[in-house]
Amino acid sequence: MLAARWTSRQVRSRSGRVDRWSSRPVSGAVVDGAGSDFLSLDVRAVPRGRITEELVRRLREAVADGRLAAGTALPSTRVLAADLGVSRGVVVEVYRRLADEGLVAARTGSATRVLGGAVPQNPVPAVPPAGRELPAQPARLPLAGSGTEFNLAPGLPDVSAFPRAAWLRAERAVLRGATTADLGYGDPRGHPRLRAELAGWLARTRGLRVGAEDVVVVTGVAQSLALLAQVLRGRGQTRIGVEDPGSRGARDQLAHWGLQPEPVPVDADGVRVDALAASGAGTVLLTPAHQFPTGVVLAPHRRRELLRWARAGNLVVEDDYDAEHRYDHAPVPALHASAPEHVAHTGSTSKTLAPGARIGWLVAPHRLRADLVAAKHAADLGNPALPQLVLAELIATGELERHVRRVRTRQRLRRDALLAALHRHLPGARVQGIAAGLHLLVTLPHAEPGADVRIASRAAEAGVLVHPLSWHRVRPGPPGLVLGYAASTPDGLREAVRRIAPLVTAP
Amino acid sequence: MLAARWTSRQVRSRSGRVDRWSSRPVSGAVVDGAGSDFLSLDVRAVPRGRITEELVRRLREAVADGRLAAGTALPSTRVLAADLGVSRGVVVEVYRRLADEGLVAARTGSATRVLGGAVPQNPVPAVPPAGRELPAQPARLPLAGSGTEFNLAPGLPDVSAFPRAAWLRAERAVLRGATTADLGYGDPRGHPRLRAELAGWLARTRGLRVGAEDVVVVTGVAQSLALLAQVLRGRGQTRIGVEDPGSRGARDQLAHWGLQPEPVPVDADGVRVDALAASGAGTVLLTPAHQFPTGVVLAPHRRRELLRWARAGNLVVEDDYDAEHRYDHAPVPALHASAPEHVAHTGSTSKTLAPGARIGWLVAPHRLRADLVAAKHAADLGNPALPQLVLAELIATGELERHVRRVRTRQRLRRDALLAALHRHLPGARVQGIAAGLHLLVTLPHAEPGADVRIASRAAEAGVLVHPLSWHRVRPGPPGLVLGYAASTPDGLREAVRRIAPLVTAP
Repeated sequence: MLAARWTSRQVRSRSGRVDRWSSRPVSGAVVDGAGSDFLSLDVRAVPRGRITEELVRRLREAVADGRLAAGTALPSTRVLAADLGVSRGVVVEVYRRLADEGLVAARTGSATRVLGGAVPQNPVPAVPPAGRELPAQPARLPLAGSGTEFNLAPGLPDVSAFPRAAWLRAERAVLRGATTADLGYGDPRGHPRLRAELAGWLARTRGLRVGAEDVVVVTGVAQSLALLAQVLRGRGQTRIGVEDPGSRGARDQLAHWGLQPEPVPVDADGVRVDALAASGAGTVLLTPAHQFPTGVVLAPHRRRELLRWARAGNLVVEDDYDAEHRYDHAPVPALHASAPEHVAHTGSTSKTLAPGARIGWLVAPHRLRADLVAAKHAADLGNPALPQLVLAELIATGELERHVRRVRTRQRLRRDALLAALHRHLPGARVQGIAAGLHLLVTLPHAEPGADVRIASRAAEAGVLVHPLSWHRVRPGPPGLVLGYAASTPDGLREAVRRIAPLVTAP
Repeated sequence: MLAARWTSRQVRSRSGRVDRWSSRPVSGAVVDGAGSDFLSLDVRAVPRGRITEELVRRLREAVADGRLAAGTALPSTRVLAADLGVSRGVVVEVYRRLADEGLVAARTGSATRVLGGAVPQNPVPAVPPAGRELPAQPARLPLAGSGTEFNLAPGLPDVSAFPRAAWLRAERAVLRGATTADLGYGDPRGHPRLRAELAGWLARTRGLRVGAEDVVVVTGVAQSLALLAQVLRGRGQTRIGVEDPGSRGARDQLAHWGLQPEPVPVDADGVRVDALAASGAGTVLLTPAHQFPTGVVLAPHRRRELLRWARAGNLVVEDDYDAEHRYDHAPVPALHASAPEHVAHTGSTSKTLAPGARIGWLVAPHRLRADLVAAKHAADLGNPALPQLVLAELIATGELERHVRRVRTRQRLRRDALLAALHRHLPGARVQGIAAGLHLLVTLPHAEPGADVRIASRAAEAGVLVHPLSWHRVRPGPPGLVLGYAASTPDGLREAVRRIAPLVTAP
């Protein structure tokens, strides 16, 4: 646990207004001119390159704990940067990340103020989640031929990049060192070594504040949903909110396990929390970091609303399916980091290594854990041992991180190639969801309902597989095309777009 | 499929009595003096070392199909051996195996006659299933001390023998050759390559007549039971027969999934089919090859009764958990071989490779398959890809077979060491279940009920972990000690017995 230590210095800030940092937060307080000492942070003690993260962590914790009350003004970026002896850019980035998380908000020319905590304010985020929309542009291009197959189905990672050499090296190390106990009937929660490595990985990459004991190793998000559905069903729940549009596979999975999916609309800010509350469902499955399939990042004000809803006795299941693939800046921390007892966080290596790896994790609130472990045990006794140890080795040696970086770079190039091709061949198209993930969404605001299904069908005839947005909708809505780009070369993407463009623009 | 081809020659046997081989079996027919031509078998075309198996297969199929009617006398071993040009020992072994399967019976000085098929006879098997009982012997030995731990819990294989080098070689080959599709989201039934290899493995080692399309790869028997329970529950079943004594873990597993276990008594011939029928359960979970924990091999007459019960619209779940570990002669073929549409056969590599491998198989009747595959998909989408491909490679290269042979030899030595130690230190003990598996049972016919729990508790204090038979009983019954020997050295076994002997013989 890397939780920031808050000392008594916090209540003796320069402003002398101790009540701000006391256990009874005061709404609307201001810390004009306050410097860095409230952070109790010696920058020289923080490793190079970790200062941004450390600052974010300390501020986040203070907001989450209510010690930084809603409405409190933070020091200006100039003051805090000078006080800490860091560049102003670092503090700007810190505040931006906190804004992405919905914890603070800034207006131009005004102080950055705390939004989260016990007394949420009316949110006006100054830093909008990046890359949610690409401006529409004009033009059009001719039709292509040939039967070549281009698979732009979303959710497919670039499996050709699977780190075979690193995996084999890790396997050799594991086989050399594995004990008899390692190969026996194991802990149904997963091997302790992997759980410890995953806790660290989730802390570093997703901001979770967890230890090995909080992590259950599963075979993937599908199994997490199965286990959660069984446990919730056992507690009398019969319904679960799902994003609409959202993952059709997840809906089917939940329905199989007896939880009726209740569609909750998604708009440009993510899931509509008002509609969720109105649905009466006590649990919701969400993809906050990069909504599937729209690519929307949950907006800060929605994030706050959602956390309030969750804290009122509800549960968010956070499907963090592709958060490692964030291209333009560090990812928004997982929701779990803000409300660990109200969020069940799950993810897997399906998008970073390969879907066939079938290794994932589930970090659930304490009240669900014993039942989840019993369900995991009853399902399969636990994950296979060797792949668990290999993954632990890949994390411990830094190979997984290097691999994710390599893949991310490659995928950014592919995304850019797809964007350029869309710009060129479909300049009238509106594109969203480009900041992260393995796919983006082309919306067709002027097309009639169902046009996307027709286009996808004709695209398939032209050798290009794409998903119509309608496939992932429960209730009717504007059409669109979901384009996965991770598993195709830039040339392939260009050719694919060249082929589908005329279908989109055809009357 | 290696099914024997029966040609028109079959109906022109030397005896001239064609009706025996016709589609309408005649009970009580005799083939005095009939030679080998009814087998339509050219011995020269059969690979060296396969002749026994081939003969067994052809005869089994003819009995199963009803073409060899119940009561039919087979040629004498002398006649058939001479006719085929094989040693008489081969034919003796073939008939013995068929007797073990409950398909034929011989009385000394009389012909071997067909028992199976449509008109079962009153069985008097001349060849009793080997090794079900070891004669009791007299003596007694002094107590041992020290806190050293000896783990004689049943079900633990010798994981220290895990073939690390072979596994790594296979993994290297797999990683070199794996395609993008191999690493993607796979077939929930398992990788086609492994399913094909498993079909061959099950045919060779367990007599199953299956193809790749019949096999579903699972994470182990526990998952097979989970999937079967879900499917049967979905079809309205609420109860399942289980052996008593029997696996406590399996009972708990089934109960978790909503099937109430109904205990069915096991005696020296295996499960009591009359009691099973009286229970009204439509499904039963059995360990016919080496009953857990008694070690009894299902007797031929029980096997026939059971198959009749199954064919009347019921289902046998055959847990083939340790059949590869058979020491004194070739294992009894799986029940599935006799009634594939009435038996769901399941096994795993937990006892041959390591429990941590979490790879197993399920071969179920056609009527259950679609639902089972849907349940497997909903559970975890399918097994991890790489371990599946590695196991396929280990089978294809013969490494698995070599490994099983090595381990079997080692385990036989351990079993013999345990038997010798029991003989020496507990000569009054009755021992059963020594022909196969990883454990044996010491019965305590003269001890009071519950004595085994007391002994096991005192054994644990003396540093020796054993299971009291009572732990595995539902209803009260004679006490006993279940001793696993696969994971301990001969010296360890000797010391363990030396320590527990005085506890057993104490008043």
